Amino acid sequence: DMHGEFTLKDLKTKFPKHEVVTTLQCAGNRREDMHGDRKLFLAPHWVVGAMSCAKWGGVRMRDVLKHCGMDVDAMALGEKDPPKGAKHVQFVGYDTDETGMCYGGSIPIDKAVDGLGDAMFAFEMNGRPLPRDHGYPVRAIAPGHAGARQCKWLHKVIVSDKESQTTWQQKSYRGFAPDINFEEDLSHWPPPRLDQAPIVQEMPVQSLVCNPPQNSLIGMRGATDITVKGVAWSGGGKKVERVDVSLDGGDNFTAAELYKPIEQKRNRHWAWTQFTKTLALPQDVQEKLNKGQRVTLDITSKAMNSDFNVQPERMEPYWNARGVCINHWYHVNVTLDPNREKEAIVMNSPDYEFANTPSGGKFAQPWGRHGWTSDPAHQTDPRAKMAPEAKHF
Amino acid sequence: DMHGEFTLKDLKTKFPKHEVVTTLQCAGNRREDMHGDRKLFLAPHWVVGAMSCAKWGGVRMRDVLKHCGMDVDAMALGEKDPPKGAKHVQFVGYDTDETGMCYGGSIPIDKAVDGLGDAMFAFEMNGRPLPRDHGYPVRAIAPGHAGARQCKWLHKVIVSDKESQTTWQQKSYRGFAPDINFEEDLSHWPPPRLDQAPIVQEMPVQSLVCNPPQNSLIGMRGATDITVKGVAWSGGGKKVERVDVSLDGGDNFTAAELYKPIEQKRNRHWAWTQFTKTLALPQDVQEKLNKGQRVTLDITSKAMNSDFNVQPERMEPYWNARGVCINHWYHVNVTLDPNREKEAIVMNSPDYEFANTPSGGKFAQPWGRHGWTSDPAHQTDPRAKMAPEAKHF
Repeated sequence: DMHGEFTLKDLKTKFPKHEVVTTLQCAGNRREDMHGDRKLFLAPHWVVGAMSCAKWGGVRMRDVLKHCGMDVDAMALGEKDPPKGAKHVQFVGYDTDETGMCYGGSIPIDKAVDGLGDAMFAFEMNGRPLPRDHGYPVRAIAPGHAGARQCKWLHKVIVSDKESQTTWQQKSYRGFAPDINFEEDLSHWPPPRLDQAPIVQEMPVQSLVCNPPQNSLIGMRGATDITVKGVAWSGGGKKVERVDVSLDGGDNFTAAELYKPIEQKRNRHWAWTQFTKTLALPQDVQEKLNKGQRVTLDITSKAMNSDFNVQPERMEPYWNARGVCINHWYHVNVTLDPNREKEAIVMNSPDYEFANTPSGGKFAQPWGRHGWTSDPAHQTDPRAKMAPEAKHF
Repeated sequence: DMHGEFTLKDLKTKFPKHEVVTTLQCAGNRREDMHGDRKLFLAPHWVVGAMSCAKWGGVRMRDVLKHCGMDVDAMALGEKDPPKGAKHVQFVGYDTDETGMCYGGSIPIDKAVDGLGDAMFAFEMNGRPLPRDHGYPVRAIAPGHAGARQCKWLHKVIVSDKESQTTWQQKSYRGFAPDINFEEDLSHWPPPRLDQAPIVQEMPVQSLVCNPPQNSLIGMRGATDITVKGVAWSGGGKKVERVDVSLDGGDNFTAAELYKPIEQKRNRHWAWTQFTKTLALPQDVQEKLNKGQRVTLDITSKAMNSDFNVQPERMEPYWNARGVCINHWYHVNVTLDPNREKEAIVMNSPDYEFANTPSGGKFAQPWGRHGWTSDPAHQTDPRAKMAPEAKHF
């Protein structure tokens, strides 16, 4: 039996400091797209913004596990199987749901002990102490995995033969087949065919256009080209190898330029990749602009990763009742106006604060009013329960 | 400077024996699908059969490299970067092209030294000495990577700061964007935007329906269901988490049962996964059969891997001039005949030996007559040049 208790100061002084730049994405990012006639069980209905990239500082999970007596090197080299009872690393946070249950999740042990996996207990973000919103004092970082597994406000870490038994691990983020519906299949638990509904860990290749913004009106007086910018990412450490962009909804694609300021290593591509491409406007678009007519464009991006996996074209054949790992082509619809000054971007969306809204406004209310529960207990700030310098994790 | 020379006997006696079950797939598998109005530069135009699964026996590359003095453990644990000049492991085979150049390819060094990567020098296949067709005396095995990197008839192994400089590494298997054509862009070398055309190593998620066979006529007297069987695989060690099958070309999918007789570990899923699903015939199909009418079905499969990456629906938006890593949904077209005994399968394709032919017969001639060269030198058996017990590799 191994165990250890560490103060935040212990973590900062007993272990080597480690830093990694990694993207976090909610497993339910882009869920808004799937929420049409067929209902999804889970909220929030993210558009595309549930994704970020930051530099995290802290200590490697493998170093802490080694300190507690685990032979992480032999496991990472394949010389030893994980000991019986050590298949998963469970995390327990300070924050609780309406019933008082602490948030929790787990990752497979091999990710935690991998010398090239960069799994961490982070206490810094972008070179400063972890902000409270990001999990102060300590959060789990498991690069390439879904955000839900990278538990904030860490309280306890348990090495176990089982995955986390919390609802967030066992139910919320599973990939069901397209013919499994909440009303018929998931309203009772366990549902049929649970074995065919994997629990999300590593995530698929993704891209999104950030500029021009969704639903924008763009001044184009005298312009003959347009610049498209965005970000792409692939889970599991896979590199974004190519991002193709299109001005006509995907009938014609060409490769964008990739911008990679952060040096990353093969199968350790945790950070997102920015892309940019200046494209000549198609002949028919230019002709309409020359006649003083407004033109709409369907700007589209698709990325390919180092396994040559690609984003699928449509969401419908990949619809899943929990709305997880949604990564079909991203479309941004804009209107070009030849009678306004070039690049004078004007939002014509009534909900600019949620302007990356493919469906055009279903998300128009502030998020709080879409809450997944109206229970006032849920509105309580979970951090109120947290000591400023947590003693155990 | 490290070097070593090993006889086949040395390999068999100086190093621990290692075995792994892994799938090999040609990076150009399914190229036939992309060879329509837009020409592909490369042959052969594989349908779906350039894929297999076997048990390989031999020695780990990391053990041989360690024997030669490389600190493979420190590299695999992330404690040391690879030494300068040791970024790739190049393989040179005994077989040559028309100009006398030996076949060659390379893999990244991290794959070769990974304790969980199972990269091997194999001298056995399915428990017997490596057959000549499969690379006797020794071939490289790099599970999860494209077949082209798993060099047969091994002659020499070179650790280098460069990838293999052969045409098979530098030109043949690269993923160009859909707007890059051979005639305009690739007829001179280097072509524009080579930096946006990654060299294939690990491969994307794939599946194919094996039964019923392509273009078959199936007796259905009294039948109300049909069984679909096939195989799925994902490169890079990713697990096949789910395979969805459809009888209507993909309008409706349901998850198949997966058959996994070989125990594999997370991110080391090298073997393919067999799937099977018995599906009730749709109501309208049964009604037509009841009236004595023949009915055609478009049987479709799509797999999802443990990164939640999926097969795309169509090939067109992913078309690439070299025809690599083709993995859109696989369709099998069959005809149900209510006037024949159940399960009496009759081929109605004139080219049954290439029956898995989505395009319906373009591949109707034996492969030799589609050869990528008419140069008689190419017809020479490369193995004639090979000593029965090769001394170096």
